[in-house]
Amino acid sequence: MEDVLIRVTDRPQLKDPILVEGLPGVGNVGKLAADYLRDQLHAKPLASVYSKFFPPQVYVNEDGIIRIVSNELTYRRAQKPGEHDLIILGGDYQGISPEGQYELTHRVLEFCHGLGVKEVYTLAGFAQGHVVEQPRVLGAATSEERVNAMKAHGVVFSRNDPGGGLIGASGLFLGLGRTFGIEGVCLMGETSGYFVDPRSAEAVLKVLTKILGVAVDFSELESKAQEIDRIAQKIHEAEQRPSESQREPAREDLGYIG
Amino acid sequence: MEDVLIRVTDRPQLKDPILVEGLPGVGNVGKLAADYLRDQLHAKPLASVYSKFFPPQVYVNEDGIIRIVSNELTYRRAQKPGEHDLIILGGDYQGISPEGQYELTHRVLEFCHGLGVKEVYTLAGFAQGHVVEQPRVLGAATSEERVNAMKAHGVVFSRNDPGGGLIGASGLFLGLGRTFGIEGVCLMGETSGYFVDPRSAEAVLKVLTKILGVAVDFSELESKAQEIDRIAQKIHEAEQRPSESQREPAREDLGYIG
Amino acid sequence: MEDVLIRVTDRPQLKDPILVEGLPGVGNVGKLAADYLRDQLHAKPLASVYSKFFPPQVYVNEDGIIRIVSNELTYRRAQKPGEHDLIILGGDYQGISPEGQYELTHRVLEFCHGLGVKEVYTLAGFAQGHVVEQPRVLGAATSEERVNAMKAHGVVFSRNDPGGGLIGASGLFLGLGRTFGIEGVCLMGETSGYFVDPRSAEAVLKVLTKILGVAVDFSELESKAQEIDRIAQKIHEAEQRPSESQREPAREDLGYIG
Amino acid sequence: MEDVLIRVTDRPQLKDPILVEGLPGVGNVGKLAADYLRDQLHAKPLASVYSKFFPPQVYVNEDGIIRIVSNELTYRRAQKPGEHDLIILGGDYQGISPEGQYELTHRVLEFCHGLGVKEVYTLAGFAQGHVVEQPRVLGAATSEERVNAMKAHGVVFSRNDPGGGLIGASGLFLGLGRTFGIEGVCLMGETSGYFVDPRSAEAVLKVLTKILGVAVDFSELESKAQEIDRIAQKIHEAEQRPSESQREPAREDLGYIG
Repeated sequence: MEDVLIRVTDRPQLKDPILVEGLPGVGNVGKLAADYLRDQLHAKPLASVYSKFFPPQVYVNEDGIIRIVSNELTYRRAQKPGEHDLIILGGDYQGISPEGQYELTHRVLEFCHGLGVKEVYTLAGFAQGHVVEQPRVLGAATSEERVNAMKAHGVVFSRNDPGGGLIGASGLFLGLGRTFGIEGVCLMGETSGYFVDPRSAEAVLKVLTKILGVAVDFSELESKAQEIDRIAQKIHEAEQRPSESQREPAREDLGYIG
Repeated sequence: MEDVLIRVTDRPQLKDPILVEGLPGVGNVGKLAADYLRDQLHAKPLASVYSKFFPPQVYVNEDGIIRIVSNELTYRRAQKPGEHDLIILGGDYQGISPEGQYELTHRVLEFCHGLGVKEVYTLAGFAQGHVVEQPRVLGAATSEERVNAMKAHGVVFSRNDPGGGLIGASGLFLGLGRTFGIEGVCLMGETSGYFVDPRSAEAVLKVLTKILGVAVDFSELESKAQEIDRIAQKIHEAEQRPSESQREPAREDLGYIG
Repeated sequence: MEDVLIRVTDRPQLKDPILVEGLPGVGNVGKLAADYLRDQLHAKPLASVYSKFFPPQVYVNEDGIIRIVSNELTYRRAQKPGEHDLIILGGDYQGISPEGQYELTHRVLEFCHGLGVKEVYTLAGFAQGHVVEQPRVLGAATSEERVNAMKAHGVVFSRNDPGGGLIGASGLFLGLGRTFGIEGVCLMGETSGYFVDPRSAEAVLKVLTKILGVAVDFSELESKAQEIDRIAQKIHEAEQRPSESQREPAREDLGYIG
Repeated sequence: MEDVLIRVTDRPQLKDPILVEGLPGVGNVGKLAADYLRDQLHAKPLASVYSKFFPPQVYVNEDGIIRIVSNELTYRRAQKPGEHDLIILGGDYQGISPEGQYELTHRVLEFCHGLGVKEVYTLAGFAQGHVVEQPRVLGAATSEERVNAMKAHGVVFSRNDPGGGLIGASGLFLGLGRTFGIEGVCLMGETSGYFVDPRSAEAVLKVLTKILGVAVDFSELESKAQEIDRIAQKIHEAEQRPSESQREPAREDLGYIG
């Protein structure tokens, strides 16, 4: 079996498409943002990525139909002048070993390079370890020009953050991208790191859509964020009353949202 | 050494054979069911699967003769109209790493595809975390038609179970099977998850044999199930009398049955 | 780099050589026995085995000279009628992953098969979990004839031991050997499993040398065994006097002998 | 993706260059020494080493620019008679698995062998488990001549140290070097093993520069060492006054220096 298998669904001619990556990770910020973008832009299936570097797992949907874990590439053509053709990468997992991370990222970059991609935006969460009311969007990039361009969009470049660098796909797509001549930016939404964070995803996506010049309705993401807020509030209240035995929302509930 | 080595024992011409998979897993339900089916149908050796993705281990039989751990493919020709030729996959282990799971499943599917397999039934246990008196058989499948066909046989498709999907060979044979054009169904017998469960295997096998249109005598599996019941009962009683020091059947005894 | 690199030191013409394997393991019994046999028979260097499946480690000898960890093949020609040419496999480590175990064993078997080996004796310890005064030698083999031949030499074939089979090189050389048409026997010396056990190695070697028809002086192995006995005795005595603070031989001392 | 990718920056003609290796490890002694040597000698970029055997990580510099983790080869031509052309290997990580260690070392040796390297010095720390005021430099080498030559430079060859051999790149470059006909020496600075140790790196580098006949100004390394001394002293004092709650330098601070 091939280590990484890319099964092509469609073969569109794209013009200088920009790749947007958002896979599961801290606060699921990257995945929430990429999936929301895909849904709002009605991006179409481009290719599926299967790999032995994912867990040996299938999901079962509500109708009892299985599908094997994968990453999914979708695309959306520019709708008006100023927009770019887009390729969006989302999925169930990042590679589950260091080797797998490298192999998957390399293979997807190689595929996207073949479609003309010269630019990538990777989306991620940045764990602050405490609740963040107004998440800022931190950045890292492959060149000084891009750093400056991002600053103009309100992206924060901090001397100290992220101190240990970026671990996982969002960093690797930039680091390995260079070997394909692909330049890029990582946008990291601040988040507590304790649960999935649609509000942080919204912050990231607001910056990204401004950069890409595409219009997106954020109301659905906003209501997800409010749902999380409500549950977090209830947990907070419940923890103030430890003696009561009534059924209360568990912390785990947060994991299922988004 | 090849990653996965399939050593062919026999080269029968089979007509649209159906693959039945049952490897060790939750409650050993899949393995118990597949091995019992093989024995009852007097299936003949077809091929042995060796792999570096299994543990580096040999078993020693009662006569002191060793054999290396393996998976085993056996076959049984249709005996009368309405039956299908069958290939049954059993064995000592699933692959012990995620990569190994993918490689083994892919290689066995490739081999079976070469023999004309277009349909697979995978057998497994579904851990409920509590004792199940009358185990139901839950299902998952690769298409809506199959889901409906299974419902007609009493298989339960639950909106919420299995929530996290299927992990291991039983899911992967369906998920990777699709890349070979092989459609299929996973039949999961409810079980506590605490010990080997012949009763759950019996429930699974009753559904499967009805689907396959083969007749099987369940008396041996039933007596295994009763043996487990007896031991479980004794353990239960012993746990009610913690102060007595008499030798009593240990929980571990359950692991050796079946 | 090749996964397993065999560097040939000598290219002797050997006649139906018998392979004897003894690598580190339970009680270091196999390694003690194989190394002692090599030394007593003045076996000559045949080939060195290097591999990325060993730890990334070099040893430094008393003169400050390094050598990378390896397995070593040595050989010894038959000296008189009735003897066989021998190849002895010893070394610093077994493969440190399941895959490594398979790859190393397969590669060494392939090499030895090329030199005409058709028979292998693997040497190992069998952990009993308690001190064994008179270690028996347990056996496992690839055929009934060999089981019977071993019984004639006093080897014990127990219906229940080893229950879980053999894990590691000593089992795998038999299990994979069959794919090369190599038949064989595993000789396991009973041992506590708590420290290196020259007495168990001696028991194994006494059986093996009888089978091979070679004469070996056991006095050095015997004095090693007595040294271990002495240290074990002192530890035992020391443990009876827990309040005394005098410097006493530590359990760790046992690990350095042999 | 290639397992190990060497991206060449420059293609100088070098004459019998000597390789100096210093990667992260015990007390970071090897890396501190190699990086300091590179900086003091103004060594020029030669090649970058990328690999899936490194963590899937990028670093972000103060300006927000990312770079993927790597090892770096630099070179410096002989400046006067008696000096040698040098190649210096430094980097962010050693390979993170045993296989990765072997593959990376083998690939870099192969590359350096192609540039004419016949000799290697590997730099490392040797953990003593207690504070070492005047670190000695211990040695290990590939031949008796080299051992003797090192002794003349004050390198200590101890009958018992290092007892368990050398684990990691510093040992492997010597062990695998032999398969390329490359001879070498490992210089190990004594260190506590509890924090990064510029003083030990200085001791190692003083020996190495004497051997190589290159002049190096040690003042910057000395001030790093004094900085560590100051922090260690403050920690020591703080630990004498456990009840005071004032903010005090944490042990972790030591990890960020050098």
